[in-house]
Amino acid sequence: MEREKLYLYDTTLRDGQQTQGVQFSTAEKLRIAEALDVLGVDYIEGGWPGANPTDSAFFHEVGTTRATMTAFGMTKRAGRSAENDDVLAAVMNAGTPAVCLVGKSHDFHVTKALGITLDENVKNIHASVAHLVASGREALFDAEHFFDGYKANPDYAVACCKAALEAGARWIVLCDTNGGTLPHEIGQIVAEVIEKGVPGDHLGIHTHNDTEMAVAGSLAAVDAGARQIQGTLNGLGERCGNANLTAIIPTLLLKEPYASRFDTGVSMEALEGLTRVSRMLDDVLNRVPFKQVAYVGASAFAHKAGLHASAILKDPSTYEHVDPGVVGNRRVIPMSNQAGQSNLRRRLVEAGIEVEPGDPALSRILDRVKTRESEGYSYDTAQASFELLAREELGVLPEYFEVKRYRVSVERRKNKYDRMVSLSEAVVVIKIDGEKKLSVSESMDEEGNDRGPVNALSKALAKDLGRFQDIIDDMRLVDFKVRITQGGTEAVTRVIIDSEDSTGRRWATVGVSANIVDASFEALLDAVRWKLVRAGAT
Amino acid sequence: MEREKLYLYDTTLRDGQQTQGVQFSTAEKLRIAEALDVLGVDYIEGGWPGANPTDSAFFHEVGTTRATMTAFGMTKRAGRSAENDDVLAAVMNAGTPAVCLVGKSHDFHVTKALGITLDENVKNIHASVAHLVASGREALFDAEHFFDGYKANPDYAVACCKAALEAGARWIVLCDTNGGTLPHEIGQIVAEVIEKGVPGDHLGIHTHNDTEMAVAGSLAAVDAGARQIQGTLNGLGERCGNANLTAIIPTLLLKEPYASRFDTGVSMEALEGLTRVSRMLDDVLNRVPFKQVAYVGASAFAHKAGLHASAILKDPSTYEHVDPGVVGNRRVIPMSNQAGQSNLRRRLVEAGIEVEPGDPALSRILDRVKTRESEGYSYDTAQASFELLAREELGVLPEYFEVKRYRVSVERRKNKYDRMVSLSEAVVVIKIDGEKKLSVSESMDEEGNDRGPVNALSKALAKDLGRFQDIIDDMRLVDFKVRITQGGTEAVTRVIIDSEDSTGRRWATVGVSANIVDASFEALLDAVRWKLVRAGAT
Repeated sequence: MEREKLYLYDTTLRDGQQTQGVQFSTAEKLRIAEALDVLGVDYIEGGWPGANPTDSAFFHEVGTTRATMTAFGMTKRAGRSAENDDVLAAVMNAGTPAVCLVGKSHDFHVTKALGITLDENVKNIHASVAHLVASGREALFDAEHFFDGYKANPDYAVACCKAALEAGARWIVLCDTNGGTLPHEIGQIVAEVIEKGVPGDHLGIHTHNDTEMAVAGSLAAVDAGARQIQGTLNGLGERCGNANLTAIIPTLLLKEPYASRFDTGVSMEALEGLTRVSRMLDDVLNRVPFKQVAYVGASAFAHKAGLHASAILKDPSTYEHVDPGVVGNRRVIPMSNQAGQSNLRRRLVEAGIEVEPGDPALSRILDRVKTRESEGYSYDTAQASFELLAREELGVLPEYFEVKRYRVSVERRKNKYDRMVSLSEAVVVIKIDGEKKLSVSESMDEEGNDRGPVNALSKALAKDLGRFQDIIDDMRLVDFKVRITQGGTEAVTRVIIDSEDSTGRRWATVGVSANIVDASFEALLDAVRWKLVRAGAT
Repeated sequence: MEREKLYLYDTTLRDGQQTQGVQFSTAEKLRIAEALDVLGVDYIEGGWPGANPTDSAFFHEVGTTRATMTAFGMTKRAGRSAENDDVLAAVMNAGTPAVCLVGKSHDFHVTKALGITLDENVKNIHASVAHLVASGREALFDAEHFFDGYKANPDYAVACCKAALEAGARWIVLCDTNGGTLPHEIGQIVAEVIEKGVPGDHLGIHTHNDTEMAVAGSLAAVDAGARQIQGTLNGLGERCGNANLTAIIPTLLLKEPYASRFDTGVSMEALEGLTRVSRMLDDVLNRVPFKQVAYVGASAFAHKAGLHASAILKDPSTYEHVDPGVVGNRRVIPMSNQAGQSNLRRRLVEAGIEVEPGDPALSRILDRVKTRESEGYSYDTAQASFELLAREELGVLPEYFEVKRYRVSVERRKNKYDRMVSLSEAVVVIKIDGEKKLSVSESMDEEGNDRGPVNALSKALAKDLGRFQDIIDDMRLVDFKVRITQGGTEAVTRVIIDSEDSTGRRWATVGVSANIVDASFEALLDAVRWKLVRAGAT
């Protein structure tokens, strides 16, 4: 049997940006778009050009994608032609192959919010879509409040969809804008819309998670015949978020009847990158990834109950609905037992360290990791710091140098032009081969801007490492993340630093302290030590 | 039409405790049980007496509850009678009116995990339940792996349920232990089980969130005839969690067909306490509440899109599926560069500032917000900083004092015990009413621990504000969030600070700089200025 095509439409960059506290930079948008394109979604909705400078810049800078790049906007306003609507023109100017226009389909909103007649609204939809099609664009019509509108006035709601369809829209997207429609209602209404003459392979579904059923609602629409799903990575989006593509995609690929029935643009190989994509987004947002999320969460395959953990060892299928590897995730078994040790050995091998099974150092390392994680450290991403910890416990970490002390000061005062300016200065004192070395640096960059105390400290630490100086000269700090791991004044700060060298190699280190400068220094120090270890310095 | 009773069974204290990193104390269990009882669930599953000392202590200490207190355990093991099974005896000894016993219903698990014959397992179930009933307890049988078992061998899975039913079980709970069964399958299988002779009003449903559809799966079972839902507060539970009662309860009470058809033990009055109960659990767990959760999340009724925000002002029902007040939550209209003037005016009104529509100051404020957001500021959450910005633009912000300069230093060195210790010191110089004031503080807390440079700065700033000192004396910093808004060394740091005073009022301020200390100082300064504004200081 030939599989039907089921289209995935990602709106992380547009509706996802409606999340409280989320504001992507252009660079972040480009990074997310690239990940989406590798994953294999069919459409990437990049934003609303004209309404938002970052969105306009994104469309300007983004290169060719496999996915159909889509700009979002709204149908033309009443009282002007589609050609003369400047808001619509700005959307068209982004030059994307597809354009999605939101419009009303709920009679109440037409008269109440737009203040125009029902007929005028239908004409606006038709004219706007026709304008897109005449300009050679693939047109999508986003029927806002569709389900509430259908319940209030089914004929009118469907008439709006048909107007778009007749004008040449490739897709009519049925939006549950308020997120309150339950899956069984969505399924029933989609079936009725198809019966009333809008073909299912022209219907998209756009749900929100206000009843925690956005995923189920999307699948109910597909069951009823819709062939496009709109959603976001990690379920980002206004209020409780949009339908979570990170949960929907694996279900479509791994679960029946979907797996046998549909083709999506996502391959089984790409699916293995899903966990990484999800973490990347959290990374961009500087969020601690929520552990208990379907498929990709760090706890999604964690087996805590003793009963479960021992059964898992006999046969993983007893307590796992899918193999964690297929979504790029991994099984977590409490550190205390044997499985914990074999996991550890695998991580050590990745760091080039071979330890015999049963070596007592393994449980010492595990204990140390546990203690430090309870203090706020995190070795999930900071593999380089983990490796240093393990080497220390195994007695194979040279003490290259000793930090005797450091001092960093930040001063803010008026300069001679009566402007407030800041300057940081750091002094680091180390001892190498019995010799004391004092280094001092300040935080000014080449343009004369203050880059803060951590920058000054980083420069002072790397200024004179004696005979190791050659090794670390090509190192640079490329990312710096700060998280407060406990609320309140007495919070503990976790700093994760990504470093890179001239070979393009990247490594992550971690530092934890109540003092943010100390935490940063610890991570900087680990970055230098790891580089020395890898260079084989002794 | 008389409403049917739909039973709610909470397992936060038992299955919820299987969450990675969660371990309740007895006192915490008592606190959660009390909240559940006030909320009005029908059953509270308190734990597994005998398997866990905390659980045994909980059953010992918990008083009389309106809800049926239930102990969890497993069916008797093979080769001994129910009367002589010590594990079962420990469960009975908790003395609860109801007991829920988990047992196998999947043939594969019976032979593979238990290593007994299919017939022996059926007999164990019957004997265990009969033993409970003979002791005057209400008996529940938890059919582990039921859905996978039913798909593999429907007759056997149903035979296990019937054995429990015939022995007198009040409830047969169908468990989707691995969480991989989709809602439509759950609905279909529940319907078939009822058809095969297990009455719906004896059937419970227990789902997990591994495909993000535990809520939908629970409702699908109810649609098919099941009359008990098992779940947890905030969806706590092993792996991706259990069905989230915090989402299910409002849907049952507020949405059709459930609202008209069923009675649950939860009243509309109790529903208004739901948000509080959810936050209380996060508080017990020392978790930052996740904002985007259905009904009770802090963002569940946050309207960021300008289009939405202005419509909300006209009629809340345009973008809200339920009234936030009915679940004890509230509407949030955040400030953002997508917001329009009407949204802005509304936020000003909340801050006690009346501005006429069309006042040119409105567009000046919006421009300023946009510019600052492009520099990395975020006013979504930092309402207090937004208010100061607006007041400044409107010319109604007194200049209480001027910061002339500050200096903060962080030093790390060996102390006299040869241990590395850090100390920060801050000097702040301000001018009030023509008078210069120098304040100095260090970062040591009462236990002699270094709390870092921001702490020292905060103390120095608040040390001597002259005639304003009384007003700010009861302020304290309660949360501190740091975000690097651009990657790389040259990143810009955004700091958001939450402050609180003795009235319990909380306000958030923001600071941005390449220098983290500067960014923090800016946010601290705003926190003080806002407090002075609100106190009416001039």
